[in-house]
Amino acid sequence: MELSEIYAPVQTDLNLVRDTLRSISRIDYHWLSDQLLYLVKETGKGIRPALTLLSGESFTYNLTYLLPMAVSVELMHTATLVHDDAIDKSDTRRGKATINSIWGDEVAILMGDYLFAKAGEFVSDTQTPRVIKLFSQTLGIISSGEINQFRGSYNANQTREDYFRRIYGKTASLFSLSTQSGAILAKAPEAAVPVMKEYGDNLGIAFQIVDDILDFTSTEEALGKPVGSDLTQGTLTLPAMMLIEKYPDDNPVKRLFETKNSANIAQAIDMILNSSIIGDCYQVASVYCEKACRNLNTVPDTISRRALFGLAEFVKSQGK
Amino acid sequence: MELSEIYAPVQTDLNLVRDTLRSISRIDYHWLSDQLLYLVKETGKGIRPALTLLSGESFTYNLTYLLPMAVSVELMHTATLVHDDAIDKSDTRRGKATINSIWGDEVAILMGDYLFAKAGEFVSDTQTPRVIKLFSQTLGIISSGEINQFRGSYNANQTREDYFRRIYGKTASLFSLSTQSGAILAKAPEAAVPVMKEYGDNLGIAFQIVDDILDFTSTEEALGKPVGSDLTQGTLTLPAMMLIEKYPDDNPVKRLFETKNSANIAQAIDMILNSSIIGDCYQVASVYCEKACRNLNTVPDTISRRALFGLAEFVKSQGK
Repeated sequence: MELSEIYAPVQTDLNLVRDTLRSISRIDYHWLSDQLLYLVKETGKGIRPALTLLSGESFTYNLTYLLPMAVSVELMHTATLVHDDAIDKSDTRRGKATINSIWGDEVAILMGDYLFAKAGEFVSDTQTPRVIKLFSQTLGIISSGEINQFRGSYNANQTREDYFRRIYGKTASLFSLSTQSGAILAKAPEAAVPVMKEYGDNLGIAFQIVDDILDFTSTEEALGKPVGSDLTQGTLTLPAMMLIEKYPDDNPVKRLFETKNSANIAQAIDMILNSSIIGDCYQVASVYCEKACRNLNTVPDTISRRALFGLAEFVKSQGK
Repeated sequence: MELSEIYAPVQTDLNLVRDTLRSISRIDYHWLSDQLLYLVKETGKGIRPALTLLSGESFTYNLTYLLPMAVSVELMHTATLVHDDAIDKSDTRRGKATINSIWGDEVAILMGDYLFAKAGEFVSDTQTPRVIKLFSQTLGIISSGEINQFRGSYNANQTREDYFRRIYGKTASLFSLSTQSGAILAKAPEAAVPVMKEYGDNLGIAFQIVDDILDFTSTEEALGKPVGSDLTQGTLTLPAMMLIEKYPDDNPVKRLFETKNSANIAQAIDMILNSSIIGDCYQVASVYCEKACRNLNTVPDTISRRALFGLAEFVKSQGK
């Protein structure tokens, strides 16, 4: 299934999300307005707002609350990316120059803050303190997780537990905010809320594992940033971790993290691609996609539930 | 009146605010925990939480909602300072080394985000979407205002209107969030809400004017940062603006902004101190303090209302 097919049940409202995102750039300060438009006019796959709407559509769909929530999760995601790029000193994202590379770190910090504020405004329009609290808790998980990732960079002695904890904070927490809030705002029965959270958590972990695979297997053109960026940033992901497990004594990842000699990056990529590692990583992602869907049969059988199953299939096969 | 006397009606609960602020440092990540404690163990004057509690105490005081709100405004303030210091590359604040100077800009960005998240969690505990929305709108005003200030730095051709707009965004907006939310959460009559907002807006403007005066008239020891920091950062404040108005042709502020030759700073300070400018600035601050109190007589005559009058007196005479 293609993404467009999966999104079909909520495509009209995803267009509204896109239009609303663009509308935030209409503000008094012309200069800021231009930058905001630059940021929001092209977004990524829109998987987080789609998760909110699809989760809501499985219960009592109410766009008055689901639309601001969907906008809010995408804005929070965009804000964290703007700050991440400033922290990582990244020049490109999705093939476009980053805010920090064009206007400097100072503007990137404040622009991220402004987007958090806007995300907060939209989430307050859900009029639902429970969801607003989840939203803030998720931002806390993401930022403390990022601090932890930053502190752990160039450290080759991380466990799988460290890795999963990290990608939970970085990605899965916002996926499950999207699914859980969709369910809560659509007045799902209380028992369905943890099911939707479980779906989001596990799908998010699978999504990040595949994202970490693609950083090795994809092309600069498709990634919109250089191949091997995670290693360049000193971030240890599952494929690199498996390479260390396979060759613990003489290992290019370890050498890279010790010496920061970038010649080791090409060798690490080469060794990973010429081994079973990529297949093994997809296998791990696949297990998380199964976990995501494990209890999904307990929620009503709607066109949106089928889309959520389809999305799990899509995530685990991306780039295959 | 001393601050301790002004705060007396709510001092017990301000201690609870302080304890709650400290409690946020008790988290899993030990490293982050240490940094958070470093940040929250000594705060400034605590004027924002005091404003929330004193405003609430003028109506139906309810600590269940007022305590998280008071914690929230102080956390938002702290978060903005952490980001500001990273942007301004400041080494000290309140006589202590800044987060960015100890742990780097990356940690400062993420730590600020974490504090915004915590502020968001506390504000969601007010269970009041109206106040939560005001909170997010205020963060939007602060960050877009900061972007504007950053863009306007080293620009000597700013109008008074630019200045007042800037200090409204930077300081007054959070003062009036504090007073307004206090009133709303204490179920003030609807007519009293704009009165409390007017008080916060005008007191905040007066407070920032006096803060800008002190940057010239105070000592490094009392400021906790070097004298003349605003000029060093290229920020045009009211005293410097008045100096340009007095000597438009040959002016050390203009020369500083054009050449960035720091020799002009001492001359500018000297000229400002040996003129009527400081007195004129206090006069402007005094007018805003009067505006702040103008309609305060329409709210109930409590010990807290008297404290709010006292606070206006305190603000306009600081450093005199």
